[in-house]
Amino acid sequence: MPVNYATPAADQLFPVAGVRLGVAEAEIRKKNRRDLTVVALDAGCTVAGVFTQNRFCAAPVQLCRKHLGKGKEMRALVINTGIANAGTGEPGRQTAQATCDAVAAALGVAADQVLPFSTGVILEPLPVDRIRAGLPAAVADLKADNWHAAAHAIMTTDTIAKAASRKLAVHGKEITISGISKGAGMIKPNMATMLGFLATDAGIAQPLLDRLVKEAADASFNCITVDGDTSTNDSYVMIASGQSGVSFTSESDAGWAEVKAAIIAVSVELAQAIVRDGEGATKFITVAVQGGKDIDECRKVGYAIGHSPLVKTAFFASDPNLGRILAAVGYAGVADLDVDGVKVWLDDVLVAENGGRATAYKEEDGARVMAQAEITVRVDLGRGAVAANVYTCDFSYDYVKINADYRS
Amino acid sequence: MPVNYATPAADQLFPVAGVRLGVAEAEIRKKNRRDLTVVALDAGCTVAGVFTQNRFCAAPVQLCRKHLGKGKEMRALVINTGIANAGTGEPGRQTAQATCDAVAAALGVAADQVLPFSTGVILEPLPVDRIRAGLPAAVADLKADNWHAAAHAIMTTDTIAKAASRKLAVHGKEITISGISKGAGMIKPNMATMLGFLATDAGIAQPLLDRLVKEAADASFNCITVDGDTSTNDSYVMIASGQSGVSFTSESDAGWAEVKAAIIAVSVELAQAIVRDGEGATKFITVAVQGGKDIDECRKVGYAIGHSPLVKTAFFASDPNLGRILAAVGYAGVADLDVDGVKVWLDDVLVAENGGRATAYKEEDGARVMAQAEITVRVDLGRGAVAANVYTCDFSYDYVKINADYRS
Repeated sequence: MPVNYATPAADQLFPVAGVRLGVAEAEIRKKNRRDLTVVALDAGCTVAGVFTQNRFCAAPVQLCRKHLGKGKEMRALVINTGIANAGTGEPGRQTAQATCDAVAAALGVAADQVLPFSTGVILEPLPVDRIRAGLPAAVADLKADNWHAAAHAIMTTDTIAKAASRKLAVHGKEITISGISKGAGMIKPNMATMLGFLATDAGIAQPLLDRLVKEAADASFNCITVDGDTSTNDSYVMIASGQSGVSFTSESDAGWAEVKAAIIAVSVELAQAIVRDGEGATKFITVAVQGGKDIDECRKVGYAIGHSPLVKTAFFASDPNLGRILAAVGYAGVADLDVDGVKVWLDDVLVAENGGRATAYKEEDGARVMAQAEITVRVDLGRGAVAANVYTCDFSYDYVKINADYRS
Repeated sequence: MPVNYATPAADQLFPVAGVRLGVAEAEIRKKNRRDLTVVALDAGCTVAGVFTQNRFCAAPVQLCRKHLGKGKEMRALVINTGIANAGTGEPGRQTAQATCDAVAAALGVAADQVLPFSTGVILEPLPVDRIRAGLPAAVADLKADNWHAAAHAIMTTDTIAKAASRKLAVHGKEITISGISKGAGMIKPNMATMLGFLATDAGIAQPLLDRLVKEAADASFNCITVDGDTSTNDSYVMIASGQSGVSFTSESDAGWAEVKAAIIAVSVELAQAIVRDGEGATKFITVAVQGGKDIDECRKVGYAIGHSPLVKTAFFASDPNLGRILAAVGYAGVADLDVDGVKVWLDDVLVAENGGRATAYKEEDGARVMAQAEITVRVDLGRGAVAANVYTCDFSYDYVKINADYRS
């Protein structure tokens, strides 16, 4: 059960002009589930993406990088679940290419205008014949108001579909932003998450979009962790169709700040939805690190807390076991950290300062916060002005159950 | 239940001339358990130690570093369980000092000849009055053949006492080595483990012992991980009494190679015992990384696999989910790793090569190895001649249970 998250209703996921989505049951690994999604883009869209830094990056990720690197106009995305097509060597690259070929033929575009995405079991071969067989149904299903179906069709171990959407008025015109994401385990994105897609009908020039997708990923998917495992298939892709009639080419354009803020906000919402649906999660934890000298040390401390199995099981148990949090701060790798200057809060409760427990701290105050489903651990390193957030979840029996059973 | 480990019988833990141990029930946190240990050293011992790199290092660790740094002769160790005296700020340092004062008075030595060690709950004050009250019984209990009792008295969440002992003949004389260790959770030592003590009646000159304790820790305690959490109290201390009549002052001394190898072997045995008793462990995993360019990248890969909750739950499930291992290799942080050159074996079964599953691999072979209680994951990075081992355990329901319940 996700922590304080529900999929928006279908009519709350607004169509983005220039972008159509279609889904199908291709039986890639299991029957009776939508596992194939095609996203068709009108001519004139700009597209940018960030991808996993895992050295065993999946064949489709390699092909995405190659296609985006050519500078051609992208016209389609194809996403399958069930098989990740990762750790599949040269045959995997051929399968990803064959998938692009099939989509290109079905839509009348070139194969290098198609971006392929796969998610699911690693090391298994992708049955490209089933993708070919499923494509006609997905193409027949293409429509602009299909974000809700697509959010469902990209799920794997997710217990809930993840999507976010908003509209804003700029220069007297309405701009729409819609996005979907998936993922619940193997979540510690490094440049991107398992899978995330966002589209807007704002026009965004390629260099501006290239910067934005990195900045948005850094503020959203690159701040989350479920288990510390960076996936082989992480991808976050942003599409700007321009069909709203409002376009941006520079950071200084009037209205850009608002559009950018809205796109980042949707990205954060999609990223947090993954943590809220983290495998076995019963709590959503924000680790807010402040007072750092640089972003790197803030993130080190945030991830040390966010990855510690001892901290995460204490959250599961609603146990204000502050020593585990302090220990994680201490081993995070900030070499010259003066622990006497560190302060730690659970929500508004000051729990540690001067190298130990805060004088006024009462166990019942800590216990009250720990019992909540949403908790902020705030750490002030007391050595600078930089801050960073990490979003994570707790570590429960169900985490073990889910991951001991995943393939069976 | 530990994985393939039983405490040696009391008569298999050989006395080390010059070293006496005594234990007592001091009721530091709970009644009816031995929780206080005193180790008295004859004059003439050399002592060296390595300690946690956690910035929130415990008050006793700070005092150990200070006392060892003075270059005086150490005459006693005092170890309590129940309370770690970590995250206790200035009051904690005073308590550690008071503990040393009390031991010094009881044994007629100076306070800065005493090394204090604490293990247990972090952030709680150490009740020094109970240590004072328990000391007379511990001192009255001092005897050379008390290693078995001491191994039990330093346990916390351990399910079994950990000790190792051996004798070897050098220059016609018998040299004895005995050691004890404790720890089951918050185990990812960085320079040392939760607590480990080793003594020999060989004489070892201080500079040689200083180097040896680091080398032995690097080959043993610094290769283990249960949960990736580096404790605030990790300490590994080595004592050389010289009372065997055989002494060493240089790496080139005849017989030193054999003694050094035996001391390192005992250290590895003590360290592995901690993993075998890792919280909730059902399997003992050796991650053997070879073919690396340097030790750092071998250890990065070893720890990426050894810390991955996905890999560890797959071991628990006896599921040959090789993709999770490959993903961990891929995100370990070896920036220019060519994954097509990586090979992975489960014991003798080649499971991955050429960027994917090995052609001859059969799932039943992987499943056979994964069902064992002892498994070696061998990874050849294919880029150099350096190797390193990491020892770890699997991740089970009981891990969550133990850590969700620890303080209650």
